[in-house]
Amino acid sequence: MDTAGRHVIAELWGCKADTLNDLQGIERGMVTAALESGAEVREVAFHKFAPQGVSGVVIISESHLTIHSFPEHGYASIDVYTCGDRIDPNVACDFITKALGATRRESVELPRGVGPIAVGQQKIEVLS
Amino acid sequence: MDTAGRHVIAELWGCKADTLNDLQGIERGMVTAALESGAEVREVAFHKFAPQGVSGVVIISESHLTIHSFPEHGYASIDVYTCGDRIDPNVACDFITKALGATRRESVELPRGVGPIAVGQQKIEVLS
Repeated sequence: MDTAGRHVIAELWGCKADTLNDLQGIERGMVTAALESGAEVREVAFHKFAPQGVSGVVIISESHLTIHSFPEHGYASIDVYTCGDRIDPNVACDFITKALGATRRESVELPRGVGPIAVGQQKIEVLS
Repeated sequence: MDTAGRHVIAELWGCKADTLNDLQGIERGMVTAALESGAEVREVAFHKFAPQGVSGVVIISESHLTIHSFPEHGYASIDVYTCGDRIDPNVACDFITKALGATRRESVELPRGVGPIAVGQQKIEVLS
């Protein structure tokens, strides 16, 4: 496999607190996001923190999706990293953004595995 | 918990192919890297691909570490993301870099959870 990949990093704000604290819902949403983008799911690991918050990862054949949620701040940090050119990581990122009901998204896309990391232009989107 | 975090993204080149294909060794190295940095390990998930390559994640209380290895290219892509100001993600990144025997590292650090993503200056290091 070629080393080239795309890595989308997104900060989601204004998400619903209940949604951000729902371990099973988040896990289901992240796996569905991976599948919707056309990725092949390999491993899934999620963790619920006390008193609140969820962290989790979906390892896909093409790399990974991660999430860390902070219900008390309506915030979730998202990474979608896909190797190869078959899958657009933005498809999964958009799916997660909608599933969490985010009203604002800050994101950047980085190329991976192709030499020095030329970070793309930042996007700031008001979604509500 | 405050949402602020630090995310180090590193491209490791010139790594030993055998090391990059050793699932148990990589898993042990990633967990040790997390512990050496002072993080608390919560979940571990690793996957070995056929014919080669390893992907894996260590979910820590402070966020996550991930790796994707490409033995045929001597390349590993690394992410170390730590929330809070107690842990320096570069400690774990340096540990992994040494463990894999990388001869070149390209890396950037991004702030997470603090608004628009101001990517730090890229570092390119020749390590051999």
